[in-house]
Amino acid sequence: MRGMGKTLIFGHRNPDTDSICSALAYADLKARTGADVEAVRLGAVSTETQFALDAFATSVPRLVESVVGEASCVILVDHNERQQSAVDIGEVTIAEVIDHHRIANFETAGPLYYRAEPVGSTSTIVLKMYKEKGIAVAPPIAGLMLSAIISDTLLLKSPTCTPEDAAAAYELATIAGVDLHAYGMDMLRAGASVADKSITQLVSMDSKEFNMSGSKVEVAQVNAVDVDDVLSRQAELESAMRDIIGAKGLDLFLFVVTDILNSNSVAVALGPRASAFEAAFSVLLENNRAPLTGVVSRKSQIIPSLTKTFSQG
Amino acid sequence: MRGMGKTLIFGHRNPDTDSICSALAYADLKARTGADVEAVRLGAVSTETQFALDAFATSVPRLVESVVGEASCVILVDHNERQQSAVDIGEVTIAEVIDHHRIANFETAGPLYYRAEPVGSTSTIVLKMYKEKGIAVAPPIAGLMLSAIISDTLLLKSPTCTPEDAAAAYELATIAGVDLHAYGMDMLRAGASVADKSITQLVSMDSKEFNMSGSKVEVAQVNAVDVDDVLSRQAELESAMRDIIGAKGLDLFLFVVTDILNSNSVAVALGPRASAFEAAFSVLLENNRAPLTGVVSRKSQIIPSLTKTFSQG
Repeated sequence: MRGMGKTLIFGHRNPDTDSICSALAYADLKARTGADVEAVRLGAVSTETQFALDAFATSVPRLVESVVGEASCVILVDHNERQQSAVDIGEVTIAEVIDHHRIANFETAGPLYYRAEPVGSTSTIVLKMYKEKGIAVAPPIAGLMLSAIISDTLLLKSPTCTPEDAAAAYELATIAGVDLHAYGMDMLRAGASVADKSITQLVSMDSKEFNMSGSKVEVAQVNAVDVDDVLSRQAELESAMRDIIGAKGLDLFLFVVTDILNSNSVAVALGPRASAFEAAFSVLLENNRAPLTGVVSRKSQIIPSLTKTFSQG
Repeated sequence: MRGMGKTLIFGHRNPDTDSICSALAYADLKARTGADVEAVRLGAVSTETQFALDAFATSVPRLVESVVGEASCVILVDHNERQQSAVDIGEVTIAEVIDHHRIANFETAGPLYYRAEPVGSTSTIVLKMYKEKGIAVAPPIAGLMLSAIISDTLLLKSPTCTPEDAAAAYELATIAGVDLHAYGMDMLRAGASVADKSITQLVSMDSKEFNMSGSKVEVAQVNAVDVDDVLSRQAELESAMRDIIGAKGLDLFLFVVTDILNSNSVAVALGPRASAFEAAFSVLLENNRAPLTGVVSRKSQIIPSLTKTFSQG
């Protein structure tokens, strides 16, 4: 690893459970091979992530706003796109990336270790790396990685879930000493309690920005047990979305509410290119919203369709 | 793997020995795990590569100019930058990348398998993947991978050579049944016989184009036992370089002759931004050329310095 001193490991802005837990797990793995590393985070932890940290008696990683001055070398987990990373990511050396997303808006000056696999969760890749290095996973770390897989795959029900993710989840549940389905539903319900959250929290807690053929697209997603808990506040939601569209100069802001029990979603689409959403999913917006039947995955069901539509102009 | 039919596997344009041999080796590995793949090439094979193919009784892969119509899915080895790949790479799905270079000008719509490691040769990573899958390497394939490592590391002498590359080379030489150093020098000498090559061949046989902060930079490299074999033809060389600069609109064209016995290079720099080369290496061009003492690696010694200089405007 180039540069001096400690290497920071972190996931994307608005961190989800995989970003927090895979950073903690990969930091554990690196530390056990002698590296000087620290897992940190780029934003507030969600209710769901806090539930997982509490369940496995793990402290929340330290919050950092900027990485320059903290470290000359960093490791990215669960993301690679610059606009999802630390604000000054361009000023440090990215030594490694462990990820399971598309690659975009990412560039380095020199060679690096990059490990991406088209699986449901970064933690599934991290578990494979523990095995490749012949290092056993401690029970609390197994619990965190399990939580990440459950979160990213909606308890193995998302189309992004591969057989490798499912096998990893069962294996990690055994190491962590929990029942996969009972723990998983408890964790998802903890994160899906939207009634106690403000609209400001809902639009920002799991929101990612994408550059699509020059257009600025933001897609926020929240899980809910009852989507009407959220949609009953649509007027207030739209007002908050319009503020963000104005502040960031977005072309499209998509807010997706996913029903974790029935694996469907409803989307609210605003912005000058809202019609691109209609074209991408062959739906018509009514009252600025449309159902997305069977859609639960931003990464594999929403982003590719939008990317394709925007690439067609 | 998405899409139908056969998946093509190929290295970069102006393929070097690693691009040809790691494509052949990775195609062998994929085929042995049941995938329908074919290793192909995007350009003529060099004298060095032909020596390696002959040594291990392997046919040259099929030449393709375009990949659309051939396949809907491709696997890139030994490169990722779009301008180094198939002309219509943007119209197919990149299912996997196995590489050891920086990542730049690369973007996908969806998740993929991406495996990059900062080692000296793609074949070193492919050998690791054989081991991870528990598949033994057949002697001819071992010979091809060995040739790739020798080529990329100048027989383990380049600063890009890691302990992992060296260990892989010794292991592969044993499997292939050749003496590493004797075979390596024979192969490098076969590729370094520049006297029989036309200037047109020399400027194109191992040339790569890079986008550096918006500037178009091309860097060609040839190995030689005696660099004067090449430099005695400098007037003709510059004429060919100026033609290419004009045709491609390059900002800088760097032609690097590397002395394989003494591990030094001499560079000829032309183009409107030739002064960027002087700034990057703290050298002064005399008669459009300058010595680069101890420099043998385009990837780790030339491209990073140029990238940094161009990023500073």
